[in-house]
Amino acid sequence: MLSCFPSWFVEVKMGDISQNLKPETIVDQVTTGAIEGSQKRWSSAPGRPDIRVPYREIALHPSANEEAVRVYDTSGPYTDENASIDVKKGLEKPRASWIAQRGFAQQKARDVKPEDNGFASEMQAVPVCPAQHDVYSGAQAKLVTQYEFAKAGIITEEMIYIAHRENACREKMAEGSEMRRADGEDFGASIPPFITPEFVREEVARGRAVIPANINHPELEPVIIGRSFLVKVNANIGNSAVTSSAAEEVDKLVWAIRWGADTVMDLSTGRNIHNIRDWIIRNSPVPIGTVPLYQALEKVGGVPEKLTWEIFRDTLIEQAEQGVDYFTIHAGVRLQHVPLTAKRTTGIVSRGGSIMASWCLAHHRESFLYEHFEDICDIMRQYDISFSLGDGLRPGSIADANDAAQFAELETLGELTKIAWAKGCQVMIEGPGHVPMHKIRANVTKQLKECGEAPFYTLGPLTTDIAPGYDHITSGIGAAMIGWFGTAMLCYVTPKEHLGLPDRSDVKTGVITYRIAAHAADLAKGHPTAQLRDDALSRARFEFRWEDQFNLSLDPDTARSFHDETLPKQAHKTAHFCSMCGPKFCSMKISHDIRREAERKEGMEQMKDVFQEHGHKLYVPQEEVDAVID
Amino acid sequence: MLSCFPSWFVEVKMGDISQNLKPETIVDQVTTGAIEGSQKRWSSAPGRPDIRVPYREIALHPSANEEAVRVYDTSGPYTDENASIDVKKGLEKPRASWIAQRGFAQQKARDVKPEDNGFASEMQAVPVCPAQHDVYSGAQAKLVTQYEFAKAGIITEEMIYIAHRENACREKMAEGSEMRRADGEDFGASIPPFITPEFVREEVARGRAVIPANINHPELEPVIIGRSFLVKVNANIGNSAVTSSAAEEVDKLVWAIRWGADTVMDLSTGRNIHNIRDWIIRNSPVPIGTVPLYQALEKVGGVPEKLTWEIFRDTLIEQAEQGVDYFTIHAGVRLQHVPLTAKRTTGIVSRGGSIMASWCLAHHRESFLYEHFEDICDIMRQYDISFSLGDGLRPGSIADANDAAQFAELETLGELTKIAWAKGCQVMIEGPGHVPMHKIRANVTKQLKECGEAPFYTLGPLTTDIAPGYDHITSGIGAAMIGWFGTAMLCYVTPKEHLGLPDRSDVKTGVITYRIAAHAADLAKGHPTAQLRDDALSRARFEFRWEDQFNLSLDPDTARSFHDETLPKQAHKTAHFCSMCGPKFCSMKISHDIRREAERKEGMEQMKDVFQEHGHKLYVPQEEVDAVID
Repeated sequence: MLSCFPSWFVEVKMGDISQNLKPETIVDQVTTGAIEGSQKRWSSAPGRPDIRVPYREIALHPSANEEAVRVYDTSGPYTDENASIDVKKGLEKPRASWIAQRGFAQQKARDVKPEDNGFASEMQAVPVCPAQHDVYSGAQAKLVTQYEFAKAGIITEEMIYIAHRENACREKMAEGSEMRRADGEDFGASIPPFITPEFVREEVARGRAVIPANINHPELEPVIIGRSFLVKVNANIGNSAVTSSAAEEVDKLVWAIRWGADTVMDLSTGRNIHNIRDWIIRNSPVPIGTVPLYQALEKVGGVPEKLTWEIFRDTLIEQAEQGVDYFTIHAGVRLQHVPLTAKRTTGIVSRGGSIMASWCLAHHRESFLYEHFEDICDIMRQYDISFSLGDGLRPGSIADANDAAQFAELETLGELTKIAWAKGCQVMIEGPGHVPMHKIRANVTKQLKECGEAPFYTLGPLTTDIAPGYDHITSGIGAAMIGWFGTAMLCYVTPKEHLGLPDRSDVKTGVITYRIAAHAADLAKGHPTAQLRDDALSRARFEFRWEDQFNLSLDPDTARSFHDETLPKQAHKTAHFCSMCGPKFCSMKISHDIRREAERKEGMEQMKDVFQEHGHKLYVPQEEVDAVID
Repeated sequence: MLSCFPSWFVEVKMGDISQNLKPETIVDQVTTGAIEGSQKRWSSAPGRPDIRVPYREIALHPSANEEAVRVYDTSGPYTDENASIDVKKGLEKPRASWIAQRGFAQQKARDVKPEDNGFASEMQAVPVCPAQHDVYSGAQAKLVTQYEFAKAGIITEEMIYIAHRENACREKMAEGSEMRRADGEDFGASIPPFITPEFVREEVARGRAVIPANINHPELEPVIIGRSFLVKVNANIGNSAVTSSAAEEVDKLVWAIRWGADTVMDLSTGRNIHNIRDWIIRNSPVPIGTVPLYQALEKVGGVPEKLTWEIFRDTLIEQAEQGVDYFTIHAGVRLQHVPLTAKRTTGIVSRGGSIMASWCLAHHRESFLYEHFEDICDIMRQYDISFSLGDGLRPGSIADANDAAQFAELETLGELTKIAWAKGCQVMIEGPGHVPMHKIRANVTKQLKECGEAPFYTLGPLTTDIAPGYDHITSGIGAAMIGWFGTAMLCYVTPKEHLGLPDRSDVKTGVITYRIAAHAADLAKGHPTAQLRDDALSRARFEFRWEDQFNLSLDPDTARSFHDETLPKQAHKTAHFCSMCGPKFCSMKISHDIRREAERKEGMEQMKDVFQEHGHKLYVPQEEVDAVID
């Protein structure tokens, strides 16, 4: 998965900036501290005190007389006030003991080669991450992947962790869960009112969900991607041309997960990418995805036709040992598909897709990724790296949506999915791109059919091409809809898409926009816990609990600052009115009067009688109201 | 229509700011000048040189070898480099001669009363707008409204104007119009491939479209609101507590239409609102809507129970004579509906709705708006003011969406629609609010059924409650969807919704977001001209015509500045690569190579033969490709 312009992404080769990096100038600061108005908490899965799952707790004002609200938390230990963070040491390793029990062979790590870091000279080099890291690989005869364990009927610790996490660490069904599920429209997903570890196992075994979790990434807090679960969000990051420190690169990850990215793709290119990737993985609580083809291309000087299977294979192993959790593999771009793109309005817009199309054309032969697909499966299975089968021929414009090239590739991805499953691998499928609203549903329907319900992972889609500068919004519309229809993970798009490199503010805007899309999808699907947060926030709004309203929002800092621009005084934050109506007249206040009136049941009944004498049916009897509302 | 926090809206009563305004400090500057990269043009309707319709022309780089792109233009004379703008004189009056022919009686204007301007003292007063303005009203025996003309089989000048405008001033069907219409899904709208004046008349006569056009607003550039036409966008403005000049108030209008608002609602309260409204209408090329109840409430000191039919009636006439084009009338909030809101999570959130509910409760009697509905029709018909039947009981949270109160009111609005039509009035219907995605479609279906397909005019809807600070996005998702399903006009929501008062930047963001939603809906409905702009922009993108890409976008200034942040040099704006891939490798460049290869048809055929010898079907024959793609 990648967008035309991945985050913070600079092709170092093009820059005229060449800065020598001195190791001694490296700082080790990343963004830490609780998200405003909430506290990081940990909860053990039922019956498993050793499996500790994070959540965020938002305490409400005492006047609310409500329990604190628990929300899903992607931010890792960075928001834990009690955690000590040192990027040189890396994160704690919650999965280490689980992995240790599985009896994988420890192996000597592949030697780092000069080309792994783009032949960076010593003065240009980002240092190696000093965090300790053993390398494991699974043998052919053993169960290695979550898919293999699931098929064998074994519930892994990751599955137990995920079940508790998806329930927002509640130990029983949330009130109204059944009702909410029934109220939603899930287009054939099997969302239960409460997630059990066994349900997680079943979905993984059916191939309908993946748990990207390389056995060399023990720092991971496991997450599941599947349409019976909460919709997930991916953010892309990449190295800067001017890398002043490894911590700066790690902070891009930390910043993205702080605002809600469930997974992060590292799309770095150029120099130092091996070492930077190591810093990122050792400090990442979320699954890290990459496009190994990008690094392979770097190793051949950026010339697609020089790519070989051997170089690509070596790159897979290099990244596998580091602990990358999922790989985008563009094996669906076959030689025969290339002519289908010739008459397109915008040709091939995927970087991976155009690299492979270029290679196929230059050599006049079938893609080496397609021809070596089983070999790729064998490698990825060994480390339990999930496939993210790339959509190299996705449409890059409204004009090209749902065309022959796109769907021909999708059919190939369906074939490949079955091969990967047979090899024991976990698989998800990447999707478009640019699609007008009326053509979105067909993408999901076809993907589910062709790919045996393997999870769909889409970029947007953008629902119009006419708003560069606002493509987080053009695509947020498509993302919410495709998430509702069945996409399991949404790859974010920032406001800088098509125009330039996103900065810190753009990344936050992109992540928040996609959290909105994912949550809107969860609500529409009837995810049983999704509406709890909306309801809590709406009650806070109705009761003028301003601080609760800010704290319950996706971005408390922005909500608070927008409010304070207009009503800066402390008194206004506790006042029972808003900036619109002022203290004298207030819609919400009138509603409270109405509610009080209605609660005086006898009063209502009496009034009804009075008015019925006059031949009007002015009040509906309270019982009728109850019947309609309940 | 209003949101909880209308734009630039301050309840003067709550402010502790009390600034005396001196007429001599008034400036008369508003935002003028062409939108970057385009020119304002005018085109006469076929056969009617006197009916001149505006559009914006975006010229492309000569290398494109394409005609200039024509886009719908809402911005009025303000973007015409040749227009001389003087807010004291008001705009030219394109409708004056059309109205003059209709033989309406000129009447003496109602005297302005002190309460019309909130009892502003001389020192606090915004002066009267000096622009010349005669007042007309239509007699009972004459045809007055566009609906009456349409029913009588008469095509008005407004209808001719609108037909040409909806076709983006093309004089024949755009290429591929039939195909695009067939490609879309319009849910029962009757979108033709080319709009004729007769088609406009038919849609107005059926009540499926309205042309808000007060006979006292000759400055208007007519616009149609109906689901067989382009989806329209409304922006709300309102007076500031600190009004330094009338031009400042006019500039809010000018700024909103510059970015694409098709209509503007003036939701001002407090002092000076009569005079400010006059400045706005005399300088407005777009329909102006108001909620007369707000001003009526001002006249009784902000105390709902003091409202009377007489005060309300007088306010209607006051605003009608000024030239307001549509009124939000909350006549659907009946006494019997009030108890239905008692158990809601967020009660009544509409300001108009809560005023009327409060009045009904205080007096224990039926709404005076409901009881006097026919009288209201008689007044509005006289000036051809369109009804916007308010949804005073719209849901204010996901929890309250599609509830008994909301739908009971909608049924009442259906009754009222039929009464208004019988009286000769034009009618549209306001809709929610806060609705999760899976409940949006039902709103449109029920509205069309209950209200005889009268145009729907919705606020958002917001698809989740958890993102204050980003409610332009939560609602942009819902707006795009409901626009696709059949909403004719979308009321914008700004990032400050629920939190505070939008500033200039928020208004622009809100309007652009809603233009995205409306355009995404037009594409999905298969509006025959909608995709022309997407295609032109996509071709510009593919061919690295950066300036064309910026100029074709909804916000050229932002697109250009985002690009320049990363690639500031002039050379990069003409370079054939992007910031991601750099000059050496480029997806788009590879696509061009592929296209060139494919165009060498013989070459492809030969390659196919070569590979078929090896038993692979590597190339699809060009004929097959053509068949699939064309």
